[in-house]
Amino acid sequence: MPAPVYALDPGSDRLREECAVFGILGTSDAAAHTALGLHALQHRGQEATGLVAHDGERFNVHRGLGQVADVFAKRRVMDGLVGNAAIGHNRYSTTGAPNPRNIQPLFAELDLGGVAVAHNGNLTNAMTLRRELIGQGSIFQSTTDTEVILHLMARAKGRVVDRLVEALLQVEGAYSLVLLTQRKLIGVRDPFGVRPLVLGRLGDSYILASESCAFDIIGAELVRDVEPGEVVVITEEGLESVRPFRRERPRPCLFEYVYFARPDSVVGGRSVYQVRKAIGAELAREAPVDADVVVPVPDSGVPAAMGFAEGAGLPFELGIIRNHYVGRTFIEPTNEIRHLGVRLKHNANMAVLKGKRVVLIDDSIVRGTTSVKIVRMVREAGAAEVHMRVASPPIRFPCFYGIDTPEKADLVASHMSIEGMAGYIDVDSLAFVTLDGLYRAMGEPGRDPMAPAFLDHYFTGDYPIPLVDEEGGSRSRQLTLLREAV
Amino acid sequence: MPAPVYALDPGSDRLREECAVFGILGTSDAAAHTALGLHALQHRGQEATGLVAHDGERFNVHRGLGQVADVFAKRRVMDGLVGNAAIGHNRYSTTGAPNPRNIQPLFAELDLGGVAVAHNGNLTNAMTLRRELIGQGSIFQSTTDTEVILHLMARAKGRVVDRLVEALLQVEGAYSLVLLTQRKLIGVRDPFGVRPLVLGRLGDSYILASESCAFDIIGAELVRDVEPGEVVVITEEGLESVRPFRRERPRPCLFEYVYFARPDSVVGGRSVYQVRKAIGAELAREAPVDADVVVPVPDSGVPAAMGFAEGAGLPFELGIIRNHYVGRTFIEPTNEIRHLGVRLKHNANMAVLKGKRVVLIDDSIVRGTTSVKIVRMVREAGAAEVHMRVASPPIRFPCFYGIDTPEKADLVASHMSIEGMAGYIDVDSLAFVTLDGLYRAMGEPGRDPMAPAFLDHYFTGDYPIPLVDEEGGSRSRQLTLLREAV
Amino acid sequence: MPAPVYALDPGSDRLREECAVFGILGTSDAAAHTALGLHALQHRGQEATGLVAHDGERFNVHRGLGQVADVFAKRRVMDGLVGNAAIGHNRYSTTGAPNPRNIQPLFAELDLGGVAVAHNGNLTNAMTLRRELIGQGSIFQSTTDTEVILHLMARAKGRVVDRLVEALLQVEGAYSLVLLTQRKLIGVRDPFGVRPLVLGRLGDSYILASESCAFDIIGAELVRDVEPGEVVVITEEGLESVRPFRRERPRPCLFEYVYFARPDSVVGGRSVYQVRKAIGAELAREAPVDADVVVPVPDSGVPAAMGFAEGAGLPFELGIIRNHYVGRTFIEPTNEIRHLGVRLKHNANMAVLKGKRVVLIDDSIVRGTTSVKIVRMVREAGAAEVHMRVASPPIRFPCFYGIDTPEKADLVASHMSIEGMAGYIDVDSLAFVTLDGLYRAMGEPGRDPMAPAFLDHYFTGDYPIPLVDEEGGSRSRQLTLLREAV
Amino acid sequence: MPAPVYALDPGSDRLREECAVFGILGTSDAAAHTALGLHALQHRGQEATGLVAHDGERFNVHRGLGQVADVFAKRRVMDGLVGNAAIGHNRYSTTGAPNPRNIQPLFAELDLGGVAVAHNGNLTNAMTLRRELIGQGSIFQSTTDTEVILHLMARAKGRVVDRLVEALLQVEGAYSLVLLTQRKLIGVRDPFGVRPLVLGRLGDSYILASESCAFDIIGAELVRDVEPGEVVVITEEGLESVRPFRRERPRPCLFEYVYFARPDSVVGGRSVYQVRKAIGAELAREAPVDADVVVPVPDSGVPAAMGFAEGAGLPFELGIIRNHYVGRTFIEPTNEIRHLGVRLKHNANMAVLKGKRVVLIDDSIVRGTTSVKIVRMVREAGAAEVHMRVASPPIRFPCFYGIDTPEKADLVASHMSIEGMAGYIDVDSLAFVTLDGLYRAMGEPGRDPMAPAFLDHYFTGDYPIPLVDEEGGSRSRQLTLLREAV
Repeated sequence: MPAPVYALDPGSDRLREECAVFGILGTSDAAAHTALGLHALQHRGQEATGLVAHDGERFNVHRGLGQVADVFAKRRVMDGLVGNAAIGHNRYSTTGAPNPRNIQPLFAELDLGGVAVAHNGNLTNAMTLRRELIGQGSIFQSTTDTEVILHLMARAKGRVVDRLVEALLQVEGAYSLVLLTQRKLIGVRDPFGVRPLVLGRLGDSYILASESCAFDIIGAELVRDVEPGEVVVITEEGLESVRPFRRERPRPCLFEYVYFARPDSVVGGRSVYQVRKAIGAELAREAPVDADVVVPVPDSGVPAAMGFAEGAGLPFELGIIRNHYVGRTFIEPTNEIRHLGVRLKHNANMAVLKGKRVVLIDDSIVRGTTSVKIVRMVREAGAAEVHMRVASPPIRFPCFYGIDTPEKADLVASHMSIEGMAGYIDVDSLAFVTLDGLYRAMGEPGRDPMAPAFLDHYFTGDYPIPLVDEEGGSRSRQLTLLREAV
Repeated sequence: MPAPVYALDPGSDRLREECAVFGILGTSDAAAHTALGLHALQHRGQEATGLVAHDGERFNVHRGLGQVADVFAKRRVMDGLVGNAAIGHNRYSTTGAPNPRNIQPLFAELDLGGVAVAHNGNLTNAMTLRRELIGQGSIFQSTTDTEVILHLMARAKGRVVDRLVEALLQVEGAYSLVLLTQRKLIGVRDPFGVRPLVLGRLGDSYILASESCAFDIIGAELVRDVEPGEVVVITEEGLESVRPFRRERPRPCLFEYVYFARPDSVVGGRSVYQVRKAIGAELAREAPVDADVVVPVPDSGVPAAMGFAEGAGLPFELGIIRNHYVGRTFIEPTNEIRHLGVRLKHNANMAVLKGKRVVLIDDSIVRGTTSVKIVRMVREAGAAEVHMRVASPPIRFPCFYGIDTPEKADLVASHMSIEGMAGYIDVDSLAFVTLDGLYRAMGEPGRDPMAPAFLDHYFTGDYPIPLVDEEGGSRSRQLTLLREAV
Repeated sequence: MPAPVYALDPGSDRLREECAVFGILGTSDAAAHTALGLHALQHRGQEATGLVAHDGERFNVHRGLGQVADVFAKRRVMDGLVGNAAIGHNRYSTTGAPNPRNIQPLFAELDLGGVAVAHNGNLTNAMTLRRELIGQGSIFQSTTDTEVILHLMARAKGRVVDRLVEALLQVEGAYSLVLLTQRKLIGVRDPFGVRPLVLGRLGDSYILASESCAFDIIGAELVRDVEPGEVVVITEEGLESVRPFRRERPRPCLFEYVYFARPDSVVGGRSVYQVRKAIGAELAREAPVDADVVVPVPDSGVPAAMGFAEGAGLPFELGIIRNHYVGRTFIEPTNEIRHLGVRLKHNANMAVLKGKRVVLIDDSIVRGTTSVKIVRMVREAGAAEVHMRVASPPIRFPCFYGIDTPEKADLVASHMSIEGMAGYIDVDSLAFVTLDGLYRAMGEPGRDPMAPAFLDHYFTGDYPIPLVDEEGGSRSRQLTLLREAV
Repeated sequence: MPAPVYALDPGSDRLREECAVFGILGTSDAAAHTALGLHALQHRGQEATGLVAHDGERFNVHRGLGQVADVFAKRRVMDGLVGNAAIGHNRYSTTGAPNPRNIQPLFAELDLGGVAVAHNGNLTNAMTLRRELIGQGSIFQSTTDTEVILHLMARAKGRVVDRLVEALLQVEGAYSLVLLTQRKLIGVRDPFGVRPLVLGRLGDSYILASESCAFDIIGAELVRDVEPGEVVVITEEGLESVRPFRRERPRPCLFEYVYFARPDSVVGGRSVYQVRKAIGAELAREAPVDADVVVPVPDSGVPAAMGFAEGAGLPFELGIIRNHYVGRTFIEPTNEIRHLGVRLKHNANMAVLKGKRVVLIDDSIVRGTTSVKIVRMVREAGAAEVHMRVASPPIRFPCFYGIDTPEKADLVASHMSIEGMAGYIDVDSLAFVTLDGLYRAMGEPGRDPMAPAFLDHYFTGDYPIPLVDEEGGSRSRQLTLLREAV
């Protein structure tokens, strides 16, 4: 009988950030700094990465499937990426097999010269615009929503920034963009400021990045957030800022703080690490429990667990150990041992669990399948009781603004009560932080229902930006029916 | 001291056909037949190959750098190329490093559905049209001239054949095209019929190919040439032919017979093998020589040498042996042993050369560098005399219609007399077939200067199709300055 | 100017375990379980991995450079590894470039059938024995010390266990071995028990592994340690134990607890995690400090930091964040930015460091170069004071028993006082746990100088097993002068 | 329905030479010259190739699966192969999947230093010796017969040449060997001289190679054959020759002239090309036929066809064209179109076959399957009659001296009369050259049955060297049951 094989990651049970962007202008090391910045932002997208540098004469490009350190590992690749300015991108794909033509930055040659663009977010009227553009004779290179922006720029008039603004006035959705032209590095954040974009400085160079941890890796300093609705234009002469869009009340995404951003990043002026600890402290206040140890589901649950332990006066212990040697290509599963799956990544540390009443802290519950396995593992290690506390409210609604979420039907909280979920994942008690508690951890007095300060549709179904394509039909039906064999 | 290394092919000294095309409709084996047809046409382009099949719903694509047998070697690649219709393409690149985005067939999603196109030839006003299209907001995926046709179709109106005709009425140059849409396989040959395109049949399927040898490999039969200026539209219902272009006097390229086509192909109703033998016989008549043996430079010189030997009544001998185990990636040259280069491919067969007066037959002389090495090798093997006879007139002018030629300055015949060349390559005598002799070998009475029957600009500088881009400036200057690392 | 590039891991500044072993007999999933076990043991060796399964008739082998999840990723690889018994190995190389012939398990065909062997440890008389065997006509496949055991078995007489014992009686050094023959799975631990080896059980199958975490991943249970000097022979009929060696006082390696073993493993009956926390508590007692926060150097310093914080009554904070997306092949360094190196892996979490008096906890100091960079980074993040506490005594002596240590001259503690080191790494205070403190954390009353319970030569220079080869000359000089170009 | 796929080479229908060897001493370009020599000998083995150079201190090795130009394509590979002396090897495998451990040259470290060996031929008592050596404690690296020689040398006494002779006195079979030690390049040819080995010279360097075409490629000259039973020892000081073996009547293999050797090689003082033409002339005399054209099965049938045409006074025409763009990995066959197989390599040239009475010339008939397809193709192209003439006698017996032959049952001539074969392959007439005719083409008066001048067991079953292993049982049964997953 042939040997059975195992899946390493049998369908992710996390929300996944779709992208990271980075740009720098004003240093001969532009490509190397960009590669390092992308490496620091690897958690925001691991499927593919790309980089475009401009050397004063031509645009030098390299893109590839895989992680940054692999795609840019070869010296001759880096040697080819000459230039004083560069932008880069990490991505997850959301639909279908990875297609090399979809790896960003995208590039187009306009009549005023070349333009490269990298995008974090998602346009909610991209399919509609795409159909219109094709009807006018445009030919698309990729199936990404981002390419719509290039086509709108190609058909607009005037100088490059004017064209960009003219294009963006036609799109709806979430976008933090960096663009590179022959002379300019441009950053834009949509009027709601859904996805983050920060401005940094290293010597004479300005830098744009999705998170501040990308500045730390190259010793650059965080200057400030690019503001919602702001267009930042960087040249060798300096930085200019324009605000061509209608003013909106900013709604930055809450989930950046809960899960996506790195704990050492400062997003919207807040330390992500401190916010997570504060959520844990809120949880301890809102849903206390009589227990012996507080144990995080690593790595994302660690700061909240520390906050909870501190708040509750309980010992914090590493009761679950994570194995970081995890490729994406491990051996395929067979049914009889598929349940072993989760242990490839997590293992119970029996010494701190045996006979104990355990509070497990996780950042969120999406499908619930991981929680089932984690709880079973903790019980098998001898825990006397298992109580779960979750550092975000129940996720009931999918995202259309750039985050890869399961369909609504697969979100366990969309069709189960908290009691139901407690039974399903087999815990002695289950509690989620309240939405007000989450806002408090962010330093707000609570959620103002008339003017909520953050994007929180996961929990509320409140979508402030119109979902144009969704109303017109399902997304996949509208995509080009072109399949590339690999 | 590190080991020196050697180049296998230090700058080609042949003209190189730029492309092959193939298309079939009406069989569930469309992709496999296309891969086989492309394999039979491998001599027309070895740098990259691609195939698009349509399965009634979607277009399935695979493209890759390398030869057909390698790119389509994997079963899962072939398994993905489902469909009852398919087109394919082999290519050489003419400019710069191979860019995956340039591998044909190209594909575009128009408002009336997808269109794939494969092109043999070269458009002489592509740069001019490209600039105009970019000025109107089109974004190009590739740097190929072929993409212009897709953009013109995208901006045209009406049904797909109407759009194709509207597009082609705007282009100048040489083109044998195959296109695939959701329901149609279309073949077009430009009004001058510069490059070949033949129509075949296998059971209920019609087939289009650059040469008839692509029919033989799958047991299909040659029906006829697609005629200059003809558009052939093939559907499940059958074949329709339209002739939308202004009538021109056909000028098929002579060099297909001299060198490009496979000897077992029938092109323009003539056996390529028989034409080559006839050229040899002409040469024997026009430039006889007192000698002991007739020796071809293999493989392309073999039929002409057989014709010469027969005509001259001299023995035909394989005095030069070719090593066919030749990759394209052998070890790099060092100066001191660079002269060894040619022996990687050819070796003298001393047993038939020693002490003999040798007539060497080659198909053409381009740069002359190969001839220098071959003659030296034959002399070192002990030949008493070396006479060279060449199966084409002196090549003095470059091609702009789809053949990769060196620049004029590198064509040895453009700046040297025949006597000068004889000295340069160190032969006891040198003669080329005359242009009239070449026309006679084609079955014509000679070249009619008022109405030449073939394209012969290599020898005459007569370019019947306007060189629009050339007048506007150098080609490379106009190309997009985008360079992809690796 | 070409872009500068960066090294991801510019010369490791950790001690590195050389190997992991795993074996199982009695399940049709032997290969899959072995691959999973090796994955759980990935931290003990990441350069190469291999697996041999026996299917009742033949030995099926796969070995490769890289991590377990990559080497065994393909289904057809796993499908080929049929068998009811299997052994596997992860390795670091200690000398020269990785040579595929050195990847274990090694295999030999003896006259009584095939034998595969995997080894954790290092033989201290291997070079001497190798020279003798070559003098007697043996031909070596590899440059590993392990192969000596196979040659000694090949030349011994009797049944396979007798031969193994006869071979082992001739070797000196540290060895935890698993062997696979046509009917037997055999485990051996050297008389001093230097490297760990544990026995587990899953259903009817016995399992051998370097650490118990390899049992957890497949849901197996830890039975007990294989004892120092014990030979365990497992067949379909059950388990037999023999003790053919002279009795020695066991000296298991202390560093397994300090750094090598996974925290969730139980080694020698002790929870590694609890030992590390206890070391931290010892440190807090021995070297208290007036500070604001306790910050670990992640990941290895985390449990000791938790123990220290608890012991000292100070807050524990994640002041340094580790980036786990780290390949081994990142871009090469240039001098001007080489100092950026360390930030690829670690970043300061400014929010918890700024203005604080910080106690940094690391597991050990080897070269000291990493500490210099970490401390500089913490200071640049705004720490008011930096105190370092180290969870092992100063490392002054290299290992010859299977751990990859720098040469003595590169061990910073071998030539610098603690004050000197404090200045070199620029801390406000520096303290190491005492050797007695470390023994106490292990549950001993302290180190008995007449009969030390553990191997502690790193700190003391006490080498209980003779270093035969070292006395005869340097190791590298004696290795075969065969170099494989890649 | 998924696309069907095709096999490029569905079971070879040729005999295959198993190996080529090359060696050179006395030039700093030793590795580059060896790579070039191996490239010229590529026809003798295309599965794998390897090279060992000695730089005065160490042996530098590179081996790989594939053709020479690919395996040695990378500059860093060649740069690593430093040395003034080198040997190399091309190989076919005869049993099982290609195993990297079997790629020659093999290497062993003896007590007197390293020895590398490359072997063309086959030992007929290798299995027997292997069993004995394993019984004495030797461990084998490979499953090749060649390794036996290294083990015998390892166990012998004295200096390296003495040990080699002592080893060779124990083996039976066919061997042309080159060996490289720290100071010597050694060549040996077995007492019967079964496989060729020639001595050449380039400047101050001596060279050994399987055929003289390997000298031509680097501009070296052929000195003479290494004689049967001769050991040639080359050092920086010069060449010494010893003859330590019992004198045998030489029996060089006839098939080198019929098929294996390149036509431009001189083997045993005879031009291979001239011998092949002479066989064609013999055939024309022995088996004349009333026909219109003589057509070779290319490439191997070409010289014999030229000789036949000349002898018969008939025109020679290229009626079959061979496609040289043929990888080894083309798409797999399906039953319905498997018959297309042969056209991937050969195509009929209808222009010279239609309506003609054709004499087809092939070098040999092995299984007969290729002939069936070729004849069918020629008939479909319109030939009026097809007569086949074969340039070797019927092959009735397999080879055990280094040539890969099908088993006896698969040799069509072993169980069918000539008339039967004519029917099977569907020709109007069929004739083979007689054995006496073949000897005459070699310049002999005919075959002397008491003292035949050549090895001709294919046709006669006369095996002059004892088949020791064959008598002891089948070869595959005795091989190590170790299978490496790839």
